[in-house]
Amino acid sequence: MGEKKNVLVLNCGSSSVKYKLYEMPSKTLIAHDYLEQIQRDQYEDTIRGVFESLKQYSIDIVSHRVVHGGEAFKQSVIINDQVKEEIRNLSRFAPLHNPINLTGIEVAQGLFPDLIHVAVFDTAFHQTMPPSSYLYALPYEYYEQYGIRKYGFHGTSHRYVMGRAAEMMGRQKEQLRLISCHIGSGVSITAIRNGESYDTSMGMTPLAGLSMGTRSGNIDPGIIPYIEEIERTDTAGAIKILNNKSGLMGVSGVSNDLRDVMKKAEEGHLRSKLALELFTTILHKHVGLYLARLNGVDGIIFTAGVGENSAAVRDLVCSGLEFAGVNLDREANRSSKGEAFISTKYSPVKVMVIPTNEELVMAMDAFELGNN
Amino acid sequence: MGEKKNVLVLNCGSSSVKYKLYEMPSKTLIAHDYLEQIQRDQYEDTIRGVFESLKQYSIDIVSHRVVHGGEAFKQSVIINDQVKEEIRNLSRFAPLHNPINLTGIEVAQGLFPDLIHVAVFDTAFHQTMPPSSYLYALPYEYYEQYGIRKYGFHGTSHRYVMGRAAEMMGRQKEQLRLISCHIGSGVSITAIRNGESYDTSMGMTPLAGLSMGTRSGNIDPGIIPYIEEIERTDTAGAIKILNNKSGLMGVSGVSNDLRDVMKKAEEGHLRSKLALELFTTILHKHVGLYLARLNGVDGIIFTAGVGENSAAVRDLVCSGLEFAGVNLDREANRSSKGEAFISTKYSPVKVMVIPTNEELVMAMDAFELGNN
Repeated sequence: MGEKKNVLVLNCGSSSVKYKLYEMPSKTLIAHDYLEQIQRDQYEDTIRGVFESLKQYSIDIVSHRVVHGGEAFKQSVIINDQVKEEIRNLSRFAPLHNPINLTGIEVAQGLFPDLIHVAVFDTAFHQTMPPSSYLYALPYEYYEQYGIRKYGFHGTSHRYVMGRAAEMMGRQKEQLRLISCHIGSGVSITAIRNGESYDTSMGMTPLAGLSMGTRSGNIDPGIIPYIEEIERTDTAGAIKILNNKSGLMGVSGVSNDLRDVMKKAEEGHLRSKLALELFTTILHKHVGLYLARLNGVDGIIFTAGVGENSAAVRDLVCSGLEFAGVNLDREANRSSKGEAFISTKYSPVKVMVIPTNEELVMAMDAFELGNN
Repeated sequence: MGEKKNVLVLNCGSSSVKYKLYEMPSKTLIAHDYLEQIQRDQYEDTIRGVFESLKQYSIDIVSHRVVHGGEAFKQSVIINDQVKEEIRNLSRFAPLHNPINLTGIEVAQGLFPDLIHVAVFDTAFHQTMPPSSYLYALPYEYYEQYGIRKYGFHGTSHRYVMGRAAEMMGRQKEQLRLISCHIGSGVSITAIRNGESYDTSMGMTPLAGLSMGTRSGNIDPGIIPYIEEIERTDTAGAIKILNNKSGLMGVSGVSNDLRDVMKKAEEGHLRSKLALELFTTILHKHVGLYLARLNGVDGIIFTAGVGENSAAVRDLVCSGLEFAGVNLDREANRSSKGEAFISTKYSPVKVMVIPTNEELVMAMDAFELGNN
């Protein structure tokens, strides 16, 4: 296990900086903070400020979240110049994220040139998908020459809850088929077998798959020219609408937050009712899609903001899946706190709520790499 | 039933004219022909020629296939000026099809002004879908003001095989939950319950849903700007590629015809293997999607060119769905001819091959309307 080390986990989002400082291998959380609404030009200063505020602690390793690792990164790595160059190249797939992730890395390296810096990629866990999962039915050259394929995201989260599910079930992860439903402001479902991602709903970009807080997910591509006409905009403009003005927000007209939409729906607001129904129907259908992908499953996991906290959503997603061996315990579902089984005792498929912890995975990966 | 009548069924596609002349109510096929590769400017002449060649028969009713009926047409109707006006309006959703369908109607009406002309819509059967099926997670105004929603296609085919499946199973269609897989050069899957379409895979346009002969189906919308960049084209150009150069054709680089792709795959051609694997995996997954949508099913139907003729595809789609009660009889599947059950005797879910017959439905609808 090696000696104690303090790992700083740094997550630089498009307008936020989150950090957690862990003592490893004990996994003790020493400090954490979440800074929001950061302007682009204040980014460097903010990160410097974070490190200033941590001066009282010794830091041994820094673990950086990087959104897009393409096909280059199948796991977390120690950052060197070549790694940075790859992350820069991959900005073409994540233009809002990778450049900021890189800024975080460079500022941190500038301040702490002697520490080990590790990159943990949202896409890495999904690199085990077979071509029948990651290819699009597009001209094959687009994949070969330009890397157009499904990469998937939320990989660190899916990996974490998969490991916890195996623990909870008392089984080897290699023996399990799991469906992991990460339902937050972003939504993705991953089919996991043999401890590896086998298929996932997000695509080349995080816009893909199911409908989300403000994202449409996959739609008929034939609609895009109509959106451009309606909005008198170009493709980039249409994609922005699909990213920022669709999903729960677009249908309800009220909010991208499921709690607000549910409240309005209860008050009788028609569009909120429709938004809720559409959101949960799409989730329910896609659990079926991954049931088929895995030819049946052993467990279904709910995680992230909505997945962890909304018993109503979990109920709507699972109800009607009895044909596949999914039997929800409604009382357990309603009263669940933290990690919990919410299926009936004899349900062939175990349903679980597992709070995600991407930062802990990032700390563990970095600690392991730092000790090798 | 009324007296005997001869119904001419006319299907004017984007580059073809198909017709069948039925004596009704006996459903006797009197004459039929299929004219291909018709140029746009020869369309009127071709249709005139069709009617010339049928001069020896008396025609009582003409039944016209119309691709897009929008929300205006929930069933087949006798064509009047208002109906034609609606079909014209709906050309915005089917610019390659509705105008040609209308040309067919107008030429036929010009030659036979005294006959009853009936319109049968590809979309009509799907008008029973609830909002949770037909809405997109887009700004709701797009639906309200511009009619952007899922319409679905192949409706006449899905309706026909649904009726036949109920007959074969000896059950009332109102008691059944069915998944109808129309797999031809176009592919769509429909979830049917209570004898009505409940959900379907095609969308506002026939590009949507599963991958097809040359169509991509739904993809991550975030890919479209990349295609535009690669091909140095605009949105319309990208959508054309998704319609005409994708699917089996795009991945294999060989053919849009599954038979060719399978042959090449057997010879060891890598891209053909990948194309076949992707095509069947997407089908398999979407059967799961509709299994969940219907909360389990009583029957699965395979129809259209590939669905009727490829035992290998049916096997790949059904294998692994045992968890949902689907047990294929491999011998029955291999040797099936015409209408057949291909599930094992005790399979909870009945799997059926049912050759589709859209023209017969068109004749029946027209005959019924003509006798009211």
